[in-house]
Amino acid sequence: MKIPVVLRVLSVFLLIFSFFLLIPILVALWYGEYHLIHVFAIPVGVNTVIALLLFIGLRSYRGLAISIRGGFLFVSLAWISAAASGAMPFYLSGEIASYTDAFFETMSGFTTTGASILTNIEGLSYSLLFWRSLTHWLGGMGIVVLTVALFPLLGIGGFQLLKAEAPGPSVDKITPRITETAKILWIIYLSLTVAETLLLLLGGMDLFDSLTHTFGTLATGGFSPKNSSVGFYSSGYIHVVITIFMYLAGVNFIMYFRLVRGDTRSIIKNTEFRVYTGIFVVASLLIAMDLYGTVYNSFSESLRYAGFQAASILTTTGYATADFAAWPEMSRITLFILMFIGGSAGSTGGGMKVIRVVTIIKQGFNEMKYLVYPRGVFRIHLNGKVAKKDAVYVITGMVFLYFFLLLVVTFVVASAGNTILTSFSTALVTLGNIGPGFGKVGPTENYAFFPDYVKWFLSFVMMVGRLEIYTVLVLFTPIFWHD
Amino acid sequence: MKIPVVLRVLSVFLLIFSFFLLIPILVALWYGEYHLIHVFAIPVGVNTVIALLLFIGLRSYRGLAISIRGGFLFVSLAWISAAASGAMPFYLSGEIASYTDAFFETMSGFTTTGASILTNIEGLSYSLLFWRSLTHWLGGMGIVVLTVALFPLLGIGGFQLLKAEAPGPSVDKITPRITETAKILWIIYLSLTVAETLLLLLGGMDLFDSLTHTFGTLATGGFSPKNSSVGFYSSGYIHVVITIFMYLAGVNFIMYFRLVRGDTRSIIKNTEFRVYTGIFVVASLLIAMDLYGTVYNSFSESLRYAGFQAASILTTTGYATADFAAWPEMSRITLFILMFIGGSAGSTGGGMKVIRVVTIIKQGFNEMKYLVYPRGVFRIHLNGKVAKKDAVYVITGMVFLYFFLLLVVTFVVASAGNTILTSFSTALVTLGNIGPGFGKVGPTENYAFFPDYVKWFLSFVMMVGRLEIYTVLVLFTPIFWHD
Repeated sequence: MKIPVVLRVLSVFLLIFSFFLLIPILVALWYGEYHLIHVFAIPVGVNTVIALLLFIGLRSYRGLAISIRGGFLFVSLAWISAAASGAMPFYLSGEIASYTDAFFETMSGFTTTGASILTNIEGLSYSLLFWRSLTHWLGGMGIVVLTVALFPLLGIGGFQLLKAEAPGPSVDKITPRITETAKILWIIYLSLTVAETLLLLLGGMDLFDSLTHTFGTLATGGFSPKNSSVGFYSSGYIHVVITIFMYLAGVNFIMYFRLVRGDTRSIIKNTEFRVYTGIFVVASLLIAMDLYGTVYNSFSESLRYAGFQAASILTTTGYATADFAAWPEMSRITLFILMFIGGSAGSTGGGMKVIRVVTIIKQGFNEMKYLVYPRGVFRIHLNGKVAKKDAVYVITGMVFLYFFLLLVVTFVVASAGNTILTSFSTALVTLGNIGPGFGKVGPTENYAFFPDYVKWFLSFVMMVGRLEIYTVLVLFTPIFWHD
Repeated sequence: MKIPVVLRVLSVFLLIFSFFLLIPILVALWYGEYHLIHVFAIPVGVNTVIALLLFIGLRSYRGLAISIRGGFLFVSLAWISAAASGAMPFYLSGEIASYTDAFFETMSGFTTTGASILTNIEGLSYSLLFWRSLTHWLGGMGIVVLTVALFPLLGIGGFQLLKAEAPGPSVDKITPRITETAKILWIIYLSLTVAETLLLLLGGMDLFDSLTHTFGTLATGGFSPKNSSVGFYSSGYIHVVITIFMYLAGVNFIMYFRLVRGDTRSIIKNTEFRVYTGIFVVASLLIAMDLYGTVYNSFSESLRYAGFQAASILTTTGYATADFAAWPEMSRITLFILMFIGGSAGSTGGGMKVIRVVTIIKQGFNEMKYLVYPRGVFRIHLNGKVAKKDAVYVITGMVFLYFFLLLVVTFVVASAGNTILTSFSTALVTLGNIGPGFGKVGPTENYAFFPDYVKWFLSFVMMVGRLEIYTVLVLFTPIFWHD
């Protein structure tokens, strides 16, 4: 692996990234926050200088393609450098006093987790709130491009299955070129952004809130500029619009290609799409039945709150319109189980992903058949086709690491004196990029109380979870650095 | 599959089982509990009549060997009929008023779980307390014979690995015949029973308590005739003896064969033995350091309580000398993580088993190597040898079902209005056959408060966990009944 080649690609990334750091300057100008212009300008300047130095200094590596291993390294470095420089505006403005907190908040943004250390969100300036939400939007798009366009080339756990058997995204089946694919994905993402923003504006939300909430929705992030999250709005219309778009953001983006092409049949036949939709509907109904009569007096109101919270947790968004930690047990447990699942592969949603959960459960039951007929040949089916056996095993490996990491994170969080419920649900909601959990990280709480070492560790965990675990952990294996 | 053949084997099982039901009659005679003789005599009589009717009625199937599928059916039927008739003495005596409770308690005994519905254990008569502990001892031995002698023939998840690669028990490597193997295992089990009973007697415990605690230890069960479990005894000597024997009961019984043969080298080289011992030592030290200065004033006392509780939870015994649910968080979390592991394969311990945990983690990391070198060939090693790939996949299938069932059980327990902590830890400690957990099923609590449907369901869950999940679940697949 040629590290200079990786750094050269990184320098290009930094330049593009700096461009997006200019947007909140426009917001600052609009709201008259002139004292905040430099907090964005400084990291833009620093990034640009570093990027140019790298780009020019390494010009002898021009034209060299990045290797597979280089790709892994690049992805992790990109996320870290985005969080490190994206944290600067919060820190330089003094509105987030500690750099640890600023880094945590920004990593939470770029990983579309939505876990916040802010105790008074509404105390932040407009331009900083806008930047905070924009990190979601950029992170969400970054992950869709990665999973649909780049991960299959790197062979990241689970995507070989998608590539070979097409229950999900497949590069060559959409367009032959990665850049072309990325472009189409951006158009879809932008269209959804415009659609949700307009619908929220129609519901009486102002432009700033419409945009920031849209960013948080489509990235399945969960940052809201309001202390009480979407619960700030009492309008049922707004709840329903955001519920629908959270659900849409958790759908594999390839489905939108197919929809545009009019290929609804393959969408309906798609295993992951069907299971994802089924889980959402069943969970919403279960919770609504539990809430009806105990928390809310009308069934439609129960269903609205149930559907919002179910979509928010299943898609790993993390918005809240109610304090679900105070709901009756059946509702809490249903949400707790949803935390183990996550969105669809190729969506902005985090977690294990529906396709993986379906695959491992099918695989578990499949192995039983061998007990009855030891010499039989049994395969699992996805989308009506036989799944590739090797790819199934890559998925199983990834899921094991997921559970293993859950316990490691639980242990580290507990080392700071937290209860089992808080520690385990913190592990679940940071590794799964969900945001709010139960106990001291519940929907009405925040992450401020954790000591610094836990915040740094959780920042790392959010990145590991967002980058499908393997992408980051592979960097820690000796074989990766061996030539 | 010929069901009559299965029933004929079951009739032999019922006769042998009835013989053990005679033992508590001797205890009743010794303690003058003459009014309780009939509560044992009745199920003995009923079993004998049923067994003889089946055996004679199905004499035309004499000499027919049981098939693989028949073996699965037999194992589940044996456990159910043992629990159903073993519950009769409790119910007929009126000392456990409801048959649901009696069945739960007996299934908890035979599955070596140790979860109890009794609110006042010491209120039970001697003969019933003895029978209660004897169910552990019988269940523990039953499972060792099954896993070492029978499961490999049935190809139960995980044991193909053991059979092929010998990191654990292997029928043909010990003795050529199953009955011979079973006999040697009984001798080892009896020797350990005699040894622990003698050591406890030396510590000043009376014969009744020594025997019943030994039964609970070697089966990794956890039923104690005392309300405060082993905590009833303040003697450090007794705590240490039981700690050592709990640890020994969690070791693969094949190691004792090797020890007798003087083959200490292969014991020391055994991956599972090393990891099992390592986990026990590290967990004990971690907890001891946490307790030192916060709960106990001396390190040796901290280590004694830490070691006891760590051994109890890791081996899935469930004895307690302290209310660990009230310990500081690091200690609680360490025990919580141990709940996910369990004893060694081929021991009486439950849970996922150390060898499975080791295999899946190695497998998870192994898959990472393929990311760096997609065309490489990477294998995982156990006991210094390459593990059989297919067997690794059988293990992964089993572990997934384990996690899937954990969530299903959590959901059912929560449906009765229990908190997440109670529901999840109930799932963990019943499926893993541990016994006490956290929340309302903590070490100073009991299972009496659950509604009947939860008790029946948990009885089933304990059996599923004890019989390595696949053995029972395979009965629910259509392919099993298909001819």
